[in-house]
Amino acid sequence: MSLLENLNWRHAVKAYDPNRKVSEQDLNSILEAARLAPTSSGLQPFRVIVVENQELKEKMVKGALNPEVMRDSSHVLVFAAWDEYSAEKIDAVYDYHTDVRELPRGRFGSYTDLLKQLYGAQTPAEHFAHTARQTYIALGLAMAQAAELKIDSTPAEGFSNDVVDEILGLQELGLKSVTLLYLGYRDAEKDWLSTMKKVRLPMEEFIIRK
Amino acid sequence: MSLLENLNWRHAVKAYDPNRKVSEQDLNSILEAARLAPTSSGLQPFRVIVVENQELKEKMVKGALNPEVMRDSSHVLVFAAWDEYSAEKIDAVYDYHTDVRELPRGRFGSYTDLLKQLYGAQTPAEHFAHTARQTYIALGLAMAQAAELKIDSTPAEGFSNDVVDEILGLQELGLKSVTLLYLGYRDAEKDWLSTMKKVRLPMEEFIIRK
Repeated sequence: MSLLENLNWRHAVKAYDPNRKVSEQDLNSILEAARLAPTSSGLQPFRVIVVENQELKEKMVKGALNPEVMRDSSHVLVFAAWDEYSAEKIDAVYDYHTDVRELPRGRFGSYTDLLKQLYGAQTPAEHFAHTARQTYIALGLAMAQAAELKIDSTPAEGFSNDVVDEILGLQELGLKSVTLLYLGYRDAEKDWLSTMKKVRLPMEEFIIRK
Repeated sequence: MSLLENLNWRHAVKAYDPNRKVSEQDLNSILEAARLAPTSSGLQPFRVIVVENQELKEKMVKGALNPEVMRDSSHVLVFAAWDEYSAEKIDAVYDYHTDVRELPRGRFGSYTDLLKQLYGAQTPAEHFAHTARQTYIALGLAMAQAAELKIDSTPAEGFSNDVVDEILGLQELGLKSVTLLYLGYRDAEKDWLSTMKKVRLPMEEFIIRK
């Protein structure tokens, strides 16, 4: 199936079958799509936390808009972004890049200097605004990969960031939760959105030609 | 080719062949992927502006980090988000949804009331922080669709938002530019990144299992 067919197939599922689990192999493919997502300057300023443990999920539903969707999903992916940039983090990523590419460390020094200057002039809040944006690319690609495998997913912003950050100990990791992605298999009878037509703005309204 | 193969194939191209244009059919497929992108509450709070005109591109390169990449690309897609939410905009989207689904208008009234309450308590800056995030989902899916068609692309945040907004008259449309996506066909000799290995953090570092 093509990407466009997969995007037409998927929707934000509103009810999962609690008895069907996503296989480890399929889960890894979905995570791989997130890992391959392009990010600003290649910094990958976020991590994906995989929550399968039911007790953890029960704690994370507190404050969620659709607690039963999270609860009945097979896995919850938590997209959590760096709370700030730093010269050390930038160097660590680029040292890794040059090592993998068998290039001398510092090969991209003029570029990393530019990044350090750019982010050095910004506040942590501005950093997080930027790192959080990057997670949405990976979120979208993870959904597309799930759809390719005919696995259902539900992206969610409606949850308590404080609760999730606390339960997963994200602050200690220098991370803050941004979005969740529930994965699993729909309960077709309870998923009221399954029977509704997908609606998107018409192309002539969504696109502006110049 | 699978999505993962396509994501491995693509990279942020650093030099385009100025003489090769993306066909109208392929361009429409890429735009369709952006249109099908899921967004928070289905509001699609952004538009994609397609710039093919060379004179417009020459004006937009002012302040860009890699002006020659934009200049030599076939098309520039501008992802531009709503500068704010409003009750009117929310109603317009949901009226359209109910009309397409042949449901009575107001069918999702309790949900749209919730959205109006949520966004009504926020500032325009908070609105834009949220609408801007949504564009990254579409940006990622547009890149994935381009890769499926073996069309090169370069996502770009390094440009002058003020210049682009002014040239395209975005303020009058209630929009603010967020990212650009250059499309085209690489100049393999000049594109120094073509020969370098793609680098991503190892899975065991990128993923945290709980």
